[in-house]
Amino acid sequence: MNGVSRKIIAVDMDEVIADALSEHLHRYNRDFGTKVTTKDLHGKWLWDYVPADHQNALMQYMLSEDFFSCLEVMPHAQRVLAKLQTRYDIFIASAAMEVPSSFNAKYRWLAEHFSFIPSSRVVFCGDKSILQADYLIDDNPRQLRLFRGEGIMFTSPANVFVTGFKRVNDWLDVEKMFLE
Amino acid sequence: MNGVSRKIIAVDMDEVIADALSEHLHRYNRDFGTKVTTKDLHGKWLWDYVPADHQNALMQYMLSEDFFSCLEVMPHAQRVLAKLQTRYDIFIASAAMEVPSSFNAKYRWLAEHFSFIPSSRVVFCGDKSILQADYLIDDNPRQLRLFRGEGIMFTSPANVFVTGFKRVNDWLDVEKMFLE
Repeated sequence: MNGVSRKIIAVDMDEVIADALSEHLHRYNRDFGTKVTTKDLHGKWLWDYVPADHQNALMQYMLSEDFFSCLEVMPHAQRVLAKLQTRYDIFIASAAMEVPSSFNAKYRWLAEHFSFIPSSRVVFCGDKSILQADYLIDDNPRQLRLFRGEGIMFTSPANVFVTGFKRVNDWLDVEKMFLE
Repeated sequence: MNGVSRKIIAVDMDEVIADALSEHLHRYNRDFGTKVTTKDLHGKWLWDYVPADHQNALMQYMLSEDFFSCLEVMPHAQRVLAKLQTRYDIFIASAAMEVPSSFNAKYRWLAEHFSFIPSSRVVFCGDKSILQADYLIDDNPRQLRLFRGEGIMFTSPANVFVTGFKRVNDWLDVEKMFLE
């Protein structure tokens, strides 16, 4: 049983524990002969940065079966989450309904890289207003606004200019915020 | 935007909007030459009723790609949910993490039979303590106990002797409870 006093932290996947953006940039630059870097994306989502007729290619990357299996784990995410789990109830909450073809790949990726988080604590949802948690660590301002607990913005290039939330730049910041 | 005053109802899938038990019984009786009916299951989950060496067969039914696509919609579920949606925010919340191979089939089944519920309001989870909702309509007492809002027990053969929750026997009862 969960102790009633344990706080609950919900944690997003893409750009928070899984580095989807690097894989997107890698595939995009390879296919279009460009050299887009994360610096070009300050304040912009990749979807808004690329020409309209390239957006379909971005979507195709996400729909490809091997996209999620390729993703690198964000630095320190495993160690810090394992440590957080000793004091908090951790749920992984991904807006997977936006890309239903990703369900299986996301589930396998979590089982491979975060096997210490039981599948009973994995949530594939759409609108994160449905999450009953004390904190949500997410890079998406729209989801943080919908969430009813305290939203913690995990820095990604697109959200650097967004204000109104406590911010963490990486997992070392998360460690400081919740464990010191 | 959701009006802040709209209450949220989370609704389970299996045995609440999808008649999984009938399909289980149909396949079980076909394969084992038995005549098990829902009456035999009063107070028992099918998994506990069948001999231990038949349990694997039950699991295989659920793992088969066509299992969820076959399921009948529970009587009146579509009409009543569509009506509820005019006054409440409805989320479908399935403990799909228990059978990860069911993600795609469940998603397709919902899109086919409950297309009026946007995918942003579909949740595949494990432990339903994570749901932020006012009500959860579910047949599973374990999930109703974990849930932090008001649990409403939807009668299924296995749960008929369970007490401690408001109970609805069918979707006409749900209609009365929430709309009259």
